[in-house]
Formats: sequence, structure tokens, C-alpha cells
Amino acid sequence: MSIFHGLSAFPITPANEHGIVDTDGVMHLIDHLSASGVNSIGLLGSTGVYAYLTRIERNRAVRAAVQAARGRVPVIVGIGALRTDDAQNLARDAEAEGADGLLMAPVSYTPLTQDETFQHYKAVTEATSLPLCIYNNPSTTHFTFTKELLCRLSDIPSIKAVKMPSPKEGEVATELTELRASPVGALAIGYSGDWIAAEALLAKCDSWFSVLGGFFPKIACQLSEAAVKEDTIAVKQYQERLQPIWTLFRELGSLRVVYAAVNHLGLSDAQPPRPLLPLTKINQERVVKALEWVTIL
Amino acid sequence: MSIFHGLSAFPITPANEHGIVDTDGVMHLIDHLSASGVNSIGLLGSTGVYAYLTRIERNRAVRAAVQAARGRVPVIVGIGALRTDDAQNLARDAEAEGADGLLMAPVSYTPLTQDETFQHYKAVTEATSLPLCIYNNPSTTHFTFTKELLCRLSDIPSIKAVKMPSPKEGEVATELTELRASPVGALAIGYSGDWIAAEALLAKCDSWFSVLGGFFPKIACQLSEAAVKEDTIAVKQYQERLQPIWTLFRELGSLRVVYAAVNHLGLSDAQPPRPLLPLTKINQERVVKALEWVTIL
Repeated sequence: MSIFHGLSAFPITPANEHGIVDTDGVMHLIDHLSASGVNSIGLLGSTGVYAYLTRIERNRAVRAAVQAARGRVPVIVGIGALRTDDAQNLARDAEAEGADGLLMAPVSYTPLTQDETFQHYKAVTEATSLPLCIYNNPSTTHFTFTKELLCRLSDIPSIKAVKMPSPKEGEVATELTELRASPVGALAIGYSGDWIAAEALLAKCDSWFSVLGGFFPKIACQLSEAAVKEDTIAVKQYQERLQPIWTLFRELGSLRVVYAAVNHLGLSDAQPPRPLLPLTKINQERVVKALEWVTIL
Repeated sequence: MSIFHGLSAFPITPANEHGIVDTDGVMHLIDHLSASGVNSIGLLGSTGVYAYLTRIERNRAVRAAVQAARGRVPVIVGIGALRTDDAQNLARDAEAEGADGLLMAPVSYTPLTQDETFQHYKAVTEATSLPLCIYNNPSTTHFTFTKELLCRLSDIPSIKAVKMPSPKEGEVATELTELRASPVGALAIGYSGDWIAAEALLAKCDSWFSVLGGFFPKIACQLSEAAVKEDTIAVKQYQERLQPIWTLFRELGSLRVVYAAVNHLGLSDAQPPRPLLPLTKINQERVVKALEWVTIL
């Protein structure tokens, strides 16, 4: 089991309207997650709005998170950046602050070639001794990893994991089998897209990179444990309870839903960085109902 | 005729490997373009790698460009940023440095809703008195403007133009007619995607936002003038001469081709910001041949 195995919880990064991180807020969230049985923290993931924060603020968030985790759970830090030198600096910063691992998406403006992305990962891994997880997230980066590129990247010694986007329902097991039969099988293979988590866990993926885990860590742990034990009846029950949340994630974007959720649950009063807007009142009420549905049943 | 009418030339922004702008290099390019008959400079467009430069470096580039233009041609400055407050600051900076207009793409990481993009533009226009051109560039931003949103934005008094991406060949005239029949018709409507420029100019679009214009301004002016005069024979001849460049733009990405072109033409020895890589030797040679083809014929 590496730091990239099991349930990784992805919290928001509370910050004010100017993008100044609320370090007390970060510590509060990380303490809450660290005490809840998750296997790692995915700090400054897409949910942690890494793309919207400066290097200085990202560093402050890492410092606060590592301090709050107190070695109870590993802290994996998102270091994605448009420029290779910026990503290298973010990797060095995270290592200096005591992070346990890195997560990096090939953020792009001008669409990247496969080779540019390879060289980007190579250059960043050379700047740090921390293990790194490939963050394959085409819905935000619009970059598509070919299987060939994933194989090539899996040859880099410090690349230890890949966070895959959710395939179509019913297709996880096939994808996982194909990946494991290739050099990519040397990596821990995890999934994001919470609605696919149960299917992916039942198919024996190595990790669940979970947005839900960032605000409902206990439920995420319970679903994860049920799936690992192949308790399909329990998994189905959890899925029924969580279905309204998955629907909102897919319809409104999980990030907006998560802010409404943490606001309602009293975990944070932070708002998303503009131009991202808080949900409308009507959608906030739908989030509240979906959250209640999880706990009522 | 506004500053957003006619041929707008989009140069690279020369910078070193650390993203420090070479202001002498900027001034050299802008002086060259200002003396060549183009109608405006599109500074810090996608070709000007705005997304890869810090606020400080973007400001240095604007200052150098305004100084070099010496009032001969208006300088339009790209102010796109992921955060609304950052885009507002870039608008204020550009205005303070004497820029004539702004160009802004809805840069995104978390995909934006139509309303978020509207509010983003509204907030930025409220921070400046400069006129603004909507930069509609789905190949880099992955944001699709609905016609409804374009109509809504055209109601904001300081929004004066829209830079449209290239539609399929043969479809510009229809698109233009439809846009002009709507409230968007109040804006100057220009096109990017150089391979569609001749068709768009013959269809009487208001402006050509030109990558070619950033390194071959005279040829771009000549093509533009031929099209405005409806000299279809001359237009066809220019298109034949430029076809190899258009092919390379589409195959390799115009940005990479432009760096190879300016290197070969001796306009700049700058390289693209990593992770973007210079073209391979073989592709550089193809660029050289395409450039020669323009001048030989």
C-alpha cells in the first residue's frame, strides 16, 4: 500500500475573495478529515481550486495542511501549473513544507502535444524526490492522455500512480484490466468522478480520489469499505443514498455543489473564486435536500 | 472605423526561459509592425503567450509596446486570466500604460457557465474605461459562447467587438449574416484562424485578427486589401502562396509555427514557454520552405 492507495479526500481550500487562503480554515478541514479514517488528503486538487491560487497562497495552504494532519494521514499536493518552471517550483515548495506526495495535471492553454506533456512530467519529477500521481482530468485540462503516453510516463521511477477520469458506466472493469495488462499496471490506478467510485472499487481499483470524501469523509469511508469487502448490498444502499449528490455533481459541476455543501454543513463559509459563482438559492436548496437524504435514510 | 476594425497583427512576446519579457525584443517587433501598415497590434494574444506570463511581465510588455507604437497604430492588449480580480487588475494596468483597447478570453479551469462568463466580462468592463473585444477562442479556453450570451454581452456599452473563431470553410458568410441580424451586429465582428481570413474578408467581416500579420505584416496587408477591394483573382493568388503556412498552422498549432518563423526571419530568437516545445528540425525545415514559398512566387 502506497500513499496513493485507498480513499483520498479532496477538500476545498478556503480563501477570501482576493484569493488569500484562510489557513485556520484549512487546518480545521484537514483536522476533520484526518480524524475520519480517510487514507490520504488530496490538497489543492481541482476541488481545492489550485488553479486559482498563487504560489505563495498554495504554499501557505500546504504548510497549514501538513501541520493539521500531524502525520496521521499523508498529504498529497496538487502542483499543476501552465508553465513547467512554475510546476517545478510548486513541487519544491510542497516538498520543503513536508508534503508526502504530488498530484499533477497537464494544465494547458495552447493545447499540448503528447511529447510536451511527457517532457513536462519528466522535468517536474527531476525537481523533486516526492512520488507523483498523474492527474488525468480532461474535463478541466482538455488534454487526452494516450495509452502510449501513460505507458511512457509509468517508466519514470517517481511516478507511482494515475488518477483516471470516470469512464462510461459499466466500463471501469474493462478499462482497468487493459491498463493493468500494460506497463501502466505498475502504477496505483485510481478513479475520480464520485458517481463511478462504487463500480471502480468493486472492480478492485487501487484508489478513490473523492470529492465526497472532502466533506462527508465517514460516508465515503463506509462506501469504500463496503466495496472493498464486496458487500454489494451495502454498496447499493450507499449508492441510493448518494444518488442525488451524484446527480447534482454532474449537473452543476461538483465544485459548486461542494461549496454549497460545506457552507450548509458548517465546515467553511468560503465561496468559490470568481468568476465561479455560488449556486443559486434554488440549487442550494437542492444540495441541502441531497445532503439530508444521505443522513436520513 | 474603430480600433477593432481592419487588420490586427498578433506578435509573439519574446521572453526568456524564466518568463522574463525581453522588452527590447518587444519594441523591435512592434516598431516593425507599426511601420508595415497594419491597423492595430494585438499584444498578448494567444500568440503573445499571455496565459504564460505574470502580471508584472505582461505590464512590462505593454509599456514597451505602447512606447514602440508611438501612436502610429492602436495597441490592443490581451487581459485574460482565470480569476476575475486578476483580469480586472490587468485591465487597469493596460489602461495605465496607455493601451488603446482590451481583448479578453474567458480563460477557465473549472468549466464556466454562461452566466459566470457574463458576470466576469461585466466586472472587468466596470474596472476600466477602455473598449473591449470579446475573445471567443474555444480551442484554448474550451468555452462555447451561446449566441444568447454574445447578445447579452453586446449590451455592455464598452464591449465593442468580438473575435470569432474560424467556422468551417464556406460558412463564414452565413454566420456573419446571422450575427449581424442579431444584437451582436452592434459589435465589430472579426475573425481569427488565418486560413479562413480571405473568405471572411470577402464576406465583409470587420476585422482580421491575424497571426500571419505578426510576422509577415506586408503580405497580410496585401491579402487584406485585395479582399476588401473584392479582387478575387489576387486573393486566390495570395491564398495559394499562403496555403503551406495555413497547413502547418492547422497541423502543428500556429504558435509553434510562428516561433520557428520569427526565428528564421531573424525577427526574434525567443522560444515558446515550456512545456511548449520548439518544432523538431524536420518541421522547422517545413516552415522555412513554406515561408520561402510565400516570397518566391
